[in-house]
Amino acid sequence: MIPIYEADRLEDLPLFDRGPQAEADVGAAVDAVLEAVRTRGDEALREYTRRFDGADLTSFEVTEAEMEAAWDSVDEDFRETLRQAAANIRRFHEAQVHRDFCLTDRPGVVLGQRYTPIEKVGVCVPGSPVAFPSTILMNVIPAKIAGVREIVVVTPPDENGAISGSALAAAKIAGADRVFKLGGAQAVAALAYGTETVPRVDKIVGPGGVFVAAAKRKVFGQVAIDMIAGPSEILVVADGKSDPAWAAADLLSQAEHDTHAAAVLVTDSRLLAEAVQREIETQLADLPRRDIARKSLEANGKILVTKDLAAAVEAANRIAPEHLELCVDDPFALLPLVKNAGSVFLGRHTPEALGDYFAGPNHTLPTSGTARFSSPLSVDDFVKKTQFIYYTREALTDAAPRIADFAEREGLHGHARSALSRMEEKGE
Amino acid sequence: MIPIYEADRLEDLPLFDRGPQAEADVGAAVDAVLEAVRTRGDEALREYTRRFDGADLTSFEVTEAEMEAAWDSVDEDFRETLRQAAANIRRFHEAQVHRDFCLTDRPGVVLGQRYTPIEKVGVCVPGSPVAFPSTILMNVIPAKIAGVREIVVVTPPDENGAISGSALAAAKIAGADRVFKLGGAQAVAALAYGTETVPRVDKIVGPGGVFVAAAKRKVFGQVAIDMIAGPSEILVVADGKSDPAWAAADLLSQAEHDTHAAAVLVTDSRLLAEAVQREIETQLADLPRRDIARKSLEANGKILVTKDLAAAVEAANRIAPEHLELCVDDPFALLPLVKNAGSVFLGRHTPEALGDYFAGPNHTLPTSGTARFSSPLSVDDFVKKTQFIYYTREALTDAAPRIADFAEREGLHGHARSALSRMEEKGE
Repeated sequence: MIPIYEADRLEDLPLFDRGPQAEADVGAAVDAVLEAVRTRGDEALREYTRRFDGADLTSFEVTEAEMEAAWDSVDEDFRETLRQAAANIRRFHEAQVHRDFCLTDRPGVVLGQRYTPIEKVGVCVPGSPVAFPSTILMNVIPAKIAGVREIVVVTPPDENGAISGSALAAAKIAGADRVFKLGGAQAVAALAYGTETVPRVDKIVGPGGVFVAAAKRKVFGQVAIDMIAGPSEILVVADGKSDPAWAAADLLSQAEHDTHAAAVLVTDSRLLAEAVQREIETQLADLPRRDIARKSLEANGKILVTKDLAAAVEAANRIAPEHLELCVDDPFALLPLVKNAGSVFLGRHTPEALGDYFAGPNHTLPTSGTARFSSPLSVDDFVKKTQFIYYTREALTDAAPRIADFAEREGLHGHARSALSRMEEKGE
Repeated sequence: MIPIYEADRLEDLPLFDRGPQAEADVGAAVDAVLEAVRTRGDEALREYTRRFDGADLTSFEVTEAEMEAAWDSVDEDFRETLRQAAANIRRFHEAQVHRDFCLTDRPGVVLGQRYTPIEKVGVCVPGSPVAFPSTILMNVIPAKIAGVREIVVVTPPDENGAISGSALAAAKIAGADRVFKLGGAQAVAALAYGTETVPRVDKIVGPGGVFVAAAKRKVFGQVAIDMIAGPSEILVVADGKSDPAWAAADLLSQAEHDTHAAAVLVTDSRLLAEAVQREIETQLADLPRRDIARKSLEANGKILVTKDLAAAVEAANRIAPEHLELCVDDPFALLPLVKNAGSVFLGRHTPEALGDYFAGPNHTLPTSGTARFSSPLSVDDFVKKTQFIYYTREALTDAAPRIADFAEREGLHGHARSALSRMEEKGE
């Protein structure tokens, strides 16, 4: 049963263990895969795809014909769901686009900052149990909005060398440029180094198991990566008026992800705490993934009782959860108190699942307490900034003595000279 | 002598080696330092500061009295230089501040994104040869503008346990909250884990040698880090009308940094290429750091001759330099062609040194070709984003069937239930 704690003193708050996955265990294996793909290219990819996915492929790229067949295989109702979800995601992420700026208010001086898209991006999509269409929408659409020129999706094939129709339909709707039947560390290697048929990209994003996580960490620097996601987490803040069945359902929706997932309820009501504890047991009985959910709850599930709702939000800030639900009458009153959280779900009718698939904000969120310093995946992750500076001769003349003095004090005389040399124009 | 290449075909462009520093060599030593500071705190800090900095300290924090004495020790002229530089940096970085947004155009739906400051930030400032005041201004001011609550500067003491007056004056002007006399891997460890007297921070920024770089990479995940900076680089695009003396001075201002620094001239004029080649030799003769500059030029310096200026900018995009100078008549015509560069210096009177100290844009820039996917340090590095979603019951009712369908197709029935359970209100 999920345990209940009194958590009036925040220092005593029992935190759960959210260490990184055991990447070290697979380090040597991943090194071998990276090296093989770097040196032997497609040949190594064929080998690993045969060994790990059981598929014998001569070429990896999904063809136009396969795309069309996939599209036709998906029922129109789900296509419409994908279209609506994509439209919502597009609308939210378009609001994230920043403008370049330019400062021109000083005579002879222009300063500015431009955004340009990263040129090529790879999106990893895990294949097990199925390639999630939602993962494809959430990773490809922000890249598309950022203006990335080439978006390459990689996802492992099944034993017949095929990829699920709904994943390909999502890739089409999201606007992916190319899809390759590749998974695991070998897919990361192909994107980081390039092969005869797979383009080398500038950034690799998307979730993955321990092999993909380890490979991403190893190629980081060569290429950019997004984040190494840990187990999924939810923290539900709920008042005494909350329906225990809803709170229980939300906690279970997280716990069913995997056995390391964390589901926490924080409430100011001892009564609710106990009711949710009972309700979880009831709902577990007929949940298809109940074994996973139960293990997860036993390891990382907890219910905290705080003296009031402000203390509950303070507890949330301390835990810095990936998902934070505020199931209270006036959630907007609590929102300004939230400091550390990936995505906040406001009110009684905003379950986390809404954000996972449909509402529009991204579902790739900082885990393991990294919401203290990290952000949800966004258009920002697919652009980079370039600063620019322009000075006229007159403006430089004014500034040069101070620049030279500054440089001399830091011991860099060549820097001083590069400013002063402009003052010694020939023939004057 | 710096070599000249014809680079009409970009594929043939000779790139220089910009691999990461040899962090692996110091890995074991850094592990030991991290572990000692994590488990023994201040005692370990005292030990390492004695061993590595030769200073015997009982406490590490710079006192109010030391701050005042430092301020008084700096001449008023340099204080004014610091003030003007700080004002320019503040002005530029204030323009980077993003607004929260909120989308309210659909009935029953509110979506948004908030920015909140990272709570505590540590700034590492190398001590050798001196703690650079410019490093302090460039790292502390953006954090201050972001609203970071506690900004902690660490910089190693000299043998007398002192820190340079101009560094402390810069810390005061920039608005650092606390300064500690700590350097190397032990400073990074103290910031990542916290000790009896040093606060644990959420993010560590600032440059450093190989020990600091290795330590930052190892604590990454525990805390956020900025980037692992490689050797400094400049790429000067110059037309035939450029003064060879200025171009040479700019190349040398980079080459004098360290022997791994890279200085590259790209020009459409063979005549200029040869003139700059000669001029570098002349200027090297009386440059105080000529030995360093010469080694750097021999290893990584080069001059490329392209068929026109557009090809020169294309070469720059391929190299993705930290600093890019456009020494041409109409630099703003070339600016839109620039894709990959940290900071662009436009025109004949905008030497890189202007950006290092004074103009306002940041001098912490992506190196080693990472401008393909990374950005200059900015206010963005000291904030994080939180998304929020609010749906009314009616809005959820509309969306729930599609959410449930989506979840079922991805095999997550608990997700489906958490949406549908809201529809089964009791007593209805």
